[in-house]
Amino acid sequence: MNKGQFIVIEGIEGAGKSSAISVVKKVLTEHGIDFINTREPGGTPLAESLRDIVKSADHQEILTQETELLLMYASRSQLMANRILPALEKGQWVIGDRHDLSSRAYQGGGRQFNDELMDTIAQVTLKGFKPQLTLYLDISPELGLARAQARGALDRIELEKIEFFHRVRNKYLEIALADETIKIIDASAPIPVVHNNIRLAVNEFLKNH
Amino acid sequence: MNKGQFIVIEGIEGAGKSSAISVVKKVLTEHGIDFINTREPGGTPLAESLRDIVKSADHQEILTQETELLLMYASRSQLMANRILPALEKGQWVIGDRHDLSSRAYQGGGRQFNDELMDTIAQVTLKGFKPQLTLYLDISPELGLARAQARGALDRIELEKIEFFHRVRNKYLEIALADETIKIIDASAPIPVVHNNIRLAVNEFLKNH
Ligand SMILES: Nc1ncnc2c1ncn2[C@@H]1O[C@H](COP(=O)(O)OP(=O)(O)OP(=O)(O)O)[C@@H](O)[C@H]1O
Ligand SMILES: Nc1ncnc2c1ncn2[C@@H]1O[C@H](COP(=O)(O)OP(=O)(O)OP(=O)(O)O)[C@@H](O)[C@H]1O
Ligand SMILES: [Mg+2]
Ligand SMILES: [Mg+2]
Repeated sequence: MNKGQFIVIEGIEGAGKSSAISVVKKVLTEHGIDFINTREPGGTPLAESLRDIVKSADHQEILTQETELLLMYASRSQLMANRILPALEKGQWVIGDRHDLSSRAYQGGGRQFNDELMDTIAQVTLKGFKPQLTLYLDISPELGLARAQARGALDRIELEKIEFFHRVRNKYLEIALADETIKIIDASAPIPVVHNNIRLAVNEFLKNH
Repeated sequence: MNKGQFIVIEGIEGAGKSSAISVVKKVLTEHGIDFINTREPGGTPLAESLRDIVKSADHQEILTQETELLLMYASRSQLMANRILPALEKGQWVIGDRHDLSSRAYQGGGRQFNDELMDTIAQVTLKGFKPQLTLYLDISPELGLARAQARGALDRIELEKIEFFHRVRNKYLEIALADETIKIIDASAPIPVVHNNIRLAVNEFLKNH
């Protein structure tokens, strides 16, 4: 039996990850591929409780940037061991709503933790494991946040200043441009165009796997 | 106003940390010193919820060694920012039931995460901050665990095999022998002897501070 493949959708809030994921699901289903989907932070009972801590805006105490960083990786460690790796071993594919690239962009780019530290923590958590394909939905923070805001109340991270999201986007682009497994999709285009580009990227990937 | 001092009590389960802490409190009180006390993991609402996760033995999922490591430091980051540093700034002393040395011994020694990784995570979390005095209560795992067991049910970490605790103790000793701020107390001695040695060590420290 072939091992499953791990496809991740990335981008800032309001980029359109949720609707992109439905397109990926549809394409995999058309090809008869069995898959699960995950979201980060979260995806296991323990990781979901860490997600709540990280996203909640009403802590009675200071939530440090270091705690945010460490909880993101603790959540990822739980998800890897309990859901992603077991599914891939069984031959199921995994569609991820965010993965390590989000930490690189938000904690590395946004919070400005240095690359060496990010590499060290990622290495101990993931041991070199990485997705086979990442679709990065690129959008300006102004447009993305406007879409996210139109959708409902913003969480703790979404309440950051606009400069924070500019640093996040820049880090996303810097990493995406240097990694062949990450495809950049223009997420400011009209929905049918975005969806068509996602379909093309996934079909291209399927041809080679 | 003088800044407070941070005194930490360390040792494996059953070493006698809880009763040692009452002796330290008594000595500080005799000297009219204002103090708070903390325990790790835990000590803030958020950190206590991480403590519950780390100590609970009945998870529905695998709890990875990496998650354990990351949650210990996330807990420590919250405690530092919300309780230890504010107290010391106000001139209060802090008596800690465990601190970073526990992670060095359990995650470094017991779980065998390497020193370089431990240094990196400790550095990002603590930024060079360390206790002014640590009292390490040294005891054999056999004796310590027998005392802890006599006291009640063992938690997830206490259920580890005896070799784990031998590695923990060896790491405690290795670090203590190389650090002048860590005093080794023979915790296998009768309680009055142990308490007297703690009293002597704290008085010696008070003479110089
Ligand atoms: N290309 C697009 N053009 C216009 N609106 C879009 C486009 N893509 C998504 N939207 C709308 O923007 C909003 C945010 O999209 P979506 O929830 O998919 O973003 P997301 O990346 O999943 O955000 P989050 O990070 O918060 O999960 C939704 O209301 C969605 O319908
Ligand atoms: N020197 C000693 N001789 C004999 N018994 C002792 C001695 N010190 C402590 N004890 C007993 O051993 C048990 C464990 O002690 P204590 O709870 O203080 O350990 P601890 O280091 O705080 O453990 P934990 O890590 O579980 O908090 C208690 O019942 C205590 O009364
Ligand atoms: Mg979404
Ligand atoms: Mg105790």
